[in-house]
This record gives sequence, structure tokens and C-alpha cells, in this order.
Amino acid sequence: MREKFHEQLDRIFVDMAAICRLVETAVGQASEALMSGDAGVAESVISADVHIDLAREAVEESAFELLSLQQPVAGDLRSVVAALRMVTELERMGDLSVHVAKIARLRVPDVAVPEDIRPTVARMAHVAEDMVGRLTTIILSRDLDEASSLREDDDEMDQLRRANFTEMLSDDWTHGVEAAVDIALLGRYYERIADHAVSVANRVVFVVTGEKPNSISG
Amino acid sequence: MREKFHEQLDRIFVDMAAICRLVETAVGQASEALMSGDAGVAESVISADVHIDLAREAVEESAFELLSLQQPVAGDLRSVVAALRMVTELERMGDLSVHVAKIARLRVPDVAVPEDIRPTVARMAHVAEDMVGRLTTIILSRDLDEASSLREDDDEMDQLRRANFTEMLSDDWTHGVEAAVDIALLGRYYERIADHAVSVANRVVFVVTGEKPNSISG
Repeated sequence: MREKFHEQLDRIFVDMAAICRLVETAVGQASEALMSGDAGVAESVISADVHIDLAREAVEESAFELLSLQQPVAGDLRSVVAALRMVTELERMGDLSVHVAKIARLRVPDVAVPEDIRPTVARMAHVAEDMVGRLTTIILSRDLDEASSLREDDDEMDQLRRANFTEMLSDDWTHGVEAAVDIALLGRYYERIADHAVSVANRVVFVVTGEKPNSISG
Repeated sequence: MREKFHEQLDRIFVDMAAICRLVETAVGQASEALMSGDAGVAESVISADVHIDLAREAVEESAFELLSLQQPVAGDLRSVVAALRMVTELERMGDLSVHVAKIARLRVPDVAVPEDIRPTVARMAHVAEDMVGRLTTIILSRDLDEASSLREDDDEMDQLRRANFTEMLSDDWTHGVEAAVDIALLGRYYERIADHAVSVANRVVFVVTGEKPNSISG
């Protein structure tokens, strides 16, 4: 019975890793649309989000089935509930990528991010995409060192966001209010993608060790 | 057994309503700090957030106990998982109030929102606080009509946010980039509080009817 339980839980983790890969593509393409002003790429992120939603529903159904049929208790129960929370967060990361793509689309044929600000925003985009890419591996391998290393990337994201504010609020800012509003929101979206990546990695740690790292909710 | 299950689930809902009341206070006080520039009120929102976090943990423990001891299946199982999700969202609404309070604190002794923009932002704040207040009643009464009426308020929030963008991007905007960045983020925080309120109300509908309204995740 417990062996079957763990087999099914492993399958749920494999399915979640597949969702994480879809999210990685979404983050990457949304950032590409943002930097290039390519409406087609932005549209493809927006229209592909339904696949993430459907994959999330399938994982949720598997998790409910596992809870119903195997009636796990203690740590096993908490692991399945952790998986339900992970998949909700992965879906949310997909939604945040759609928000990025929508800002890109709104400014087509222009590019939302002014040229001199692009290095900071491009770095944020890169950090977010890289974190999501590594999260796929963490979900599959349940590598605890790798999970804790994601927190360092999150620190870089926080620094980038502060640098970004400094750029916008300096007297040299010549790009007006619209660009500043876009960039403030983009910064928020990338920051939230990074936050969720750390939170999902923390839940992996919880599933493996039974212990909650700091800053995990639930 | 089932009677005991429902008694315990009811108790979880009562505890969640108490958390919702804490969130209502947080949203109200954060908005007050924002409009008045009162650092003390902002601080009290920030320091009170720990009570919401602790109350969430207590509800989660009750829900896990209920799952472990009663081993619910089918609709009962989904109701407990819905409660776990609701309480996560309530906590998040508290975090978003803290974000609002932090913007207020950052600008003390000034007021983050320029006077001519205050009506729109004050209305957003009011709609958010009102939605959270009504959500407390919805959690306690499980009133389906009231739950679906929250969606109308959410439409008003979306309209307010659009009006807010129009104000910021008009040629008459004289408040510079910093105020625009603050207001863009404040709008985002209030919008997310409203989104979560609708989502929690939808989960109440799910618990009562077993059917998911549109736009519920999980």
C-alpha cells in the first residue's frame, strides 16, 4: 500500500515537473516578447496558458484520487497537500508570465522597456527564467542543496528590483510615467515568479525532510 | 462520524471568519495610513500580520487533524482541501495589506497618494475593505447570493484600476514618476486583495454546492 502510494506521489511530481517546464517556456517567451515587441510571441504565451491550467487540473485530480484511495496520514498526507499547493503556485507563475506578455502586447510595435533600462529588466527576466528552469530539476531530483541555492537567486532578484527603483526615481529618468508604471509592474511580476519558485522549492524540502524551511506558507 | 466531521469543519469556518476579520482590519488600517501618512497606523498593520500568520497555522493544523482522524472522502475531502486553500488566500490578503502599509510608511511624513488622485485610490481601498468585510459574513453564513454579488464589486475594482491608469497617463499628470510607481503598485495590491476575496467566496460556493463557479482555481 505505501509503496503504491509513493509510486503515485512520484508520478504527481513528474507531472508537476512537466508543468514547471511549461512555465519556464512561458517566462522565457514573455520576456522575449517584452524585449523585442513581437506581438506573435506575446500572443503565444497568452494562448498557451490554458495548457498549464489543464495540466494543473489533471495533477489536482490525481492528488485527490491519491488522498481518497490511499487515505494517507501524517507525513504522507502532508506531502500530498504540499503537492496540491505546489501546483497552485506553478499555475500562478504561468499567470504572472501572461501578465508580462500582456504588457509587451500593449506596447506593440514599441518595446515597453526603454533601451537604457533593458539590462536590469533583462537580468530580472533571466534570473526568473533560470530559477524556474532549476525548479524543474529540484522537483524531479528533490535535491535539497539545489533547493536552498534558489534562495540566493531570490536575493539577487530583490537587489535587481531595488536597482530598478533607483533607475526610475533618479533625476535622469527621461522615459515618462508610462514606462515607469510598466516597469514597476514588470518588476513586481518577476519578483512574484521568483517568490513562488522559492516557495515551491521549500515545499519540496518539506516533502523530503518533513520540516518547513523559513518562509514557507503552509 | 459524519456529524462530528461537519462540526469540526464548521469550527474551521468560524476560525477562518475570525482571520477574515483580522484581514479586514489590516486592509482598513493600511488604507488609513496611506491617506493620512500616519506611521504609527502603518506600523501596527505590519506588526499585527504575525497574528494572521499564527491563526492561519492553527486553522491548517485543525484541517490536517480533521483529514487524519476522520479520513473524509469525496465532497468532504474536497471541502477540507478548499478550507486549506481559503486560509492560504486569507493570509495572502493580509500580506498585501502589509505591502500597502509599507508604501504608506515609505513616504511618511508625506502622503503617497497626491490629493487629486485620492478619490480613485480611496474608492479602491473602500471597495477592497468592503469586500473583505462581506467575505467574513459569506464564510459564516455560506450565503450563495452574497458570494456571487462579490463578483460585481470585483468588476468595480477593475474599472477603478483602469480609471487610475487613465489618470496617471494623462498629459495633466504633474506628480512625477515616484507617485505614479506607488499608485501603480497600490492599484495592483488592492486588485489582488479583491481577486482573492472573490476566489475565497467561490470556494465557499464550492463547499456548499460541490460545483466550481468559473474562475476558481482548484
